[in-house]
Amino acid sequence: MSKITALDLAKNQKEISVAEFFERNKHILGFGNSTRALLTSIKEGVDNSLDACEEVNILPDIYVEISNHEDGECRVIIEDNGPGVVKKQIKHIFGRLLYGSRFHAIRQSRGQQGIGISAVVLYGQLTTGKHATVISKIQEDRPAAVLELAIDTNKNRAEVINQTITHWDKPSGTRVEISIIADYKRGKRFVYDYLQSTSIVNPHAQITYKEPDGAIHVFERTSEVLPRKSVEIKPHPYGIELGTLIKIAKNSKSRKLSSFLKTEFSSMGDRTVNVVCEEAQLEKNLNPKDMTRNEFLAIHKAFKKVKIMSPPTDCLSPIGETLIKRSLKHETREISPEFIITASRPAATYSGNPFQIEAGLVYGGNLPKDSSVKIMRFANRVPLLYQQGGCITTEAISSIDWRRYGLEQKSGKGIPSGPAIFLIHMSSTQIPFTSESKEAIADVSEIENEIRLALRICARKVQHHIHKKVRRKKTKEKFELITKILPEIANKSSKMLNKPVPSLEAIITEIMDVVWIEDLIEYEKVKSNDVKPVQTTLIDEKMEKHGVGVITKSTIMVVNYKRKPQKFNLYVLIPEDAVVGMVEPKPVKISDKYIKWNLDDIPSADKVDIIFELAGLEEGDFDENDIYTEDINPSFVIGADKWEGD
Amino acid sequence: MSKITALDLAKNQKEISVAEFFERNKHILGFGNSTRALLTSIKEGVDNSLDACEEVNILPDIYVEISNHEDGECRVIIEDNGPGVVKKQIKHIFGRLLYGSRFHAIRQSRGQQGIGISAVVLYGQLTTGKHATVISKIQEDRPAAVLELAIDTNKNRAEVINQTITHWDKPSGTRVEISIIADYKRGKRFVYDYLQSTSIVNPHAQITYKEPDGAIHVFERTSEVLPRKSVEIKPHPYGIELGTLIKIAKNSKSRKLSSFLKTEFSSMGDRTVNVVCEEAQLEKNLNPKDMTRNEFLAIHKAFKKVKIMSPPTDCLSPIGETLIKRSLKHETREISPEFIITASRPAATYSGNPFQIEAGLVYGGNLPKDSSVKIMRFANRVPLLYQQGGCITTEAISSIDWRRYGLEQKSGKGIPSGPAIFLIHMSSTQIPFTSESKEAIADVSEIENEIRLALRICARKVQHHIHKKVRRKKTKEKFELITKILPEIANKSSKMLNKPVPSLEAIITEIMDVVWIEDLIEYEKVKSNDVKPVQTTLIDEKMEKHGVGVITKSTIMVVNYKRKPQKFNLYVLIPEDAVVGMVEPKPVKISDKYIKWNLDDIPSADKVDIIFELAGLEEGDFDENDIYTEDINPSFVIGADKWEGD
Repeated sequence: MSKITALDLAKNQKEISVAEFFERNKHILGFGNSTRALLTSIKEGVDNSLDACEEVNILPDIYVEISNHEDGECRVIIEDNGPGVVKKQIKHIFGRLLYGSRFHAIRQSRGQQGIGISAVVLYGQLTTGKHATVISKIQEDRPAAVLELAIDTNKNRAEVINQTITHWDKPSGTRVEISIIADYKRGKRFVYDYLQSTSIVNPHAQITYKEPDGAIHVFERTSEVLPRKSVEIKPHPYGIELGTLIKIAKNSKSRKLSSFLKTEFSSMGDRTVNVVCEEAQLEKNLNPKDMTRNEFLAIHKAFKKVKIMSPPTDCLSPIGETLIKRSLKHETREISPEFIITASRPAATYSGNPFQIEAGLVYGGNLPKDSSVKIMRFANRVPLLYQQGGCITTEAISSIDWRRYGLEQKSGKGIPSGPAIFLIHMSSTQIPFTSESKEAIADVSEIENEIRLALRICARKVQHHIHKKVRRKKTKEKFELITKILPEIANKSSKMLNKPVPSLEAIITEIMDVVWIEDLIEYEKVKSNDVKPVQTTLIDEKMEKHGVGVITKSTIMVVNYKRKPQKFNLYVLIPEDAVVGMVEPKPVKISDKYIKWNLDDIPSADKVDIIFELAGLEEGDFDENDIYTEDINPSFVIGADKWEGD
Repeated sequence: MSKITALDLAKNQKEISVAEFFERNKHILGFGNSTRALLTSIKEGVDNSLDACEEVNILPDIYVEISNHEDGECRVIIEDNGPGVVKKQIKHIFGRLLYGSRFHAIRQSRGQQGIGISAVVLYGQLTTGKHATVISKIQEDRPAAVLELAIDTNKNRAEVINQTITHWDKPSGTRVEISIIADYKRGKRFVYDYLQSTSIVNPHAQITYKEPDGAIHVFERTSEVLPRKSVEIKPHPYGIELGTLIKIAKNSKSRKLSSFLKTEFSSMGDRTVNVVCEEAQLEKNLNPKDMTRNEFLAIHKAFKKVKIMSPPTDCLSPIGETLIKRSLKHETREISPEFIITASRPAATYSGNPFQIEAGLVYGGNLPKDSSVKIMRFANRVPLLYQQGGCITTEAISSIDWRRYGLEQKSGKGIPSGPAIFLIHMSSTQIPFTSESKEAIADVSEIENEIRLALRICARKVQHHIHKKVRRKKTKEKFELITKILPEIANKSSKMLNKPVPSLEAIITEIMDVVWIEDLIEYEKVKSNDVKPVQTTLIDEKMEKHGVGVITKSTIMVVNYKRKPQKFNLYVLIPEDAVVGMVEPKPVKISDKYIKWNLDDIPSADKVDIIFELAGLEEGDFDENDIYTEDINPSFVIGADKWEGD
């Protein structure tokens, strides 16, 4: 054998097209096996449809159909009422990897990579050899375009096999039909779960799903309001890489350092720009194109030293605590858990990308006690169903010692076991997925930290809840004992002494020595034209449309079992989406987070009832009051916690 | 706000360069945080160097240096004695993503994607704004080329910033220097672990590692033999996708279906080609270029129905049981485990790619009993240090009920806890990694299945081992009891009766009623010129070079505690890399897997000593004999199992 040299090796070196790369590495895109392939295909289509509709302020109406053919072939159809795609872009968007509109925009969206749907087309072609069909209509008065597409993987370009037009009954929309090899039988449950979860956290979307056997499931739209539209922002100076800074400078039209910093980054006002330039010891009039690496390095260092405002968070669209609660409630609808807790962190940044973590926790009830806790993960309102083990959310949960919250955990590490479900949602302008299949969030310390903080809030609330329950139970036992035994003693001794039975209230009060707070929540379905005058503010949009809605009525009973009259403030938290209606007695403040009452001089052994009504919620969204007291020793209060301020 | 339409959206749609994509998604490449970034950079460089050396049959001599600068900047240097890279290819290989030689070759190698090293250059540029320097020498009598490179991420092309030549003392080689932002303090342990593990499973490589503080670690070469060179093969018909089949046909030069099948695929001999064409009901003379999708579909179906030989496995290069054992031994050097077990599966295929699974298991000793078992993962001889939770190996381990093997496991699922270490190695022409960072193996059912089978072999061996130990212990107790008490009884009764003490051997034998086998292993360091004549065959290469080596001497004692003489065959397994030297008594067969003796008529109460010597192993590689017997009722034998055939 003659010696092999670098020259021999050079002959084999060549470029790899990105389509060819993913054709070979289809598992990276989420097509590793035929079960997962089905879910990935549906998911990419639906995510795209949701994004497209939201982008043009249309309430999404999505149709998903799977038909199952022999040899494991499935035809997958996803149709929406979005804006459609202009004809000359169709072949690029559906037939070319790394092509799209959302990659270069810093804004929360489901699709970010320009890979998703074209990867489905690629996978379909690879496994069935069949072409994909795309129908798109962009204007009400024009016909729809119909294209049959293949992908030339050597070039990463679409081949238009056939194109025509058709009449379509919709004002606008997109429909894609792709044949793939998929294991419908095993993938079925995942598709259903994904669509259901998607529907819960996207209540503004209507999703119709037709299964191969003809069964149709409609996941109804439950809100007529589109989520706040995420705004596109500039990159934030915190966490931006030096190389990116240099690259932005190269492409910038600004001729002065000061205007460069002001126009290309978010949170950079005149004052901050000045401080940054001073810190970097650079002239504000410097032309960015003439700057050296060391000068950029100085700016980069200054970014880290100077206090810069957080990036605007209107680029984010969190799920919200009410929807998280609703989602968890749905998940546990058959097992009546003990309580559901939610927590929401303020927005933070990693590598200059704003993000926000929300968390939820369900505990107790008939949840299985012996197996690992269930983890539900969402990213930009998309449920993540695979790769849980490789996700930072799992790592964050595993890193907390859950043993003192009633869960089992080997040496305080790892996924705990016990009757609980955890939910984590990350919203961000860029979710750092571990791979193009978008199934797990990568190990970024800032994100892990925020997830941990959100979980700690949940944990504290759990402890709180358990603590409150225990105290209330103990006091209740004491109370019951007193109200049973004292009268008996009084009766017997009165009989023996032949004297009248004395009044016991003062004694009971003396022994109890607490303010007792208890609450009750009721729901009432009301027709909009039935609503009594005091409730007119409660008529929300949904009621107006359907003529019917739910009023959540909360009654809080405050009993003064202390010897002296009590005077204190009482706060009740209200969920973010609720509209406050009737309130009695008159509160001193209604903010968007709470109602505050000034309870003046409740006499000893006397009782005050507080009643308020909420609209805009569904039955069960609000099922327990968060009650706080102020200006009273909290150890005298059973059923409420100390108010710690807003 | 005016209505947004598809036309507005179209303006933002554009192509994304693959470099730009990964610049934004650096976590996908393993640069998600600055700890991992350090390991990924070193790993990509070292993997490349190992591949390059092996490709041209050079024993790798690799130098790794990290210097740590302020602000978390590290300069990483990786140098090898490989073939070098021809000058005009340097900029492509190091400055362009998706470019390489190994992507299109079906053959086991560490690098497969054409992403690795250029990703490090990209990451360096992104985080430090500095250029990478590559030095390459391809011929002994020529100077080395020195290139300074940057990557234009908008185009995914390298920019050569500077180029020159230099004198270099090596016959040939490559050296790459890249500045990156990395957390040396936290990444230190990972780099060391990776280099150490790499050295253990690549004993033919010498790795020198210089740390920032100047400390130098040399991971010595312990074998002068390169691993079997993996041969490039054609794709195998099993598991090939229909789309790939059509694509291969499009690019093939064959004009007839028969020659197309024969030349483009492996394991397709004339007979198999005939059967496939018959099954597909197609003419052998059909021109592949004229074939329709349905005709290809028929071929594709026929592939699955016809029995086709497995792909050749000489494209694979497994680690081997000895190295696996050595690796596990090294891992447990301070905790003297109870036993180490290895298992190797025959080659299998997934999607037409041959692969092979090897497994190892360490059990007991001072391994921690309370925490999760440790999992060591390797892919094509590369240790995988991150993303364990997202790896199919973890899933496979979790899916087996380990409770009856002395490990704890909540409801028989999940990662078990207990004193054990698992090792899994997958070798394949294509490892299906979950992402470009090559840290975890994707969920492919064929692979999971093979891992499970390998683990089951380990599990059986564990059970076996425990069972053997228990039986031997019981018999030993019985034996000790008999040999202590019987002589005392005999003595006392003899005294009482005033008669001579009778011989007890026959009685002991009657009560024991077993053949007792025990073994002892000793190591002896020998100088090559000291070796006695009978050992000359033992002088292995290493001894010849260093003048010193280890002889492993095994003594097996067979005692017949049965009443009748015993005649049976005895087998002892020998590790794959061992060379058999002196053997006494004369065996009837020495294969590459075992030595077989024909033990003729061992008289009752008599003993036979079997001695053999092995060379080519290190001290401790062989520390327990696997002994089997044949033609004797296995329940009469303590210390050996029934021979089940090769």
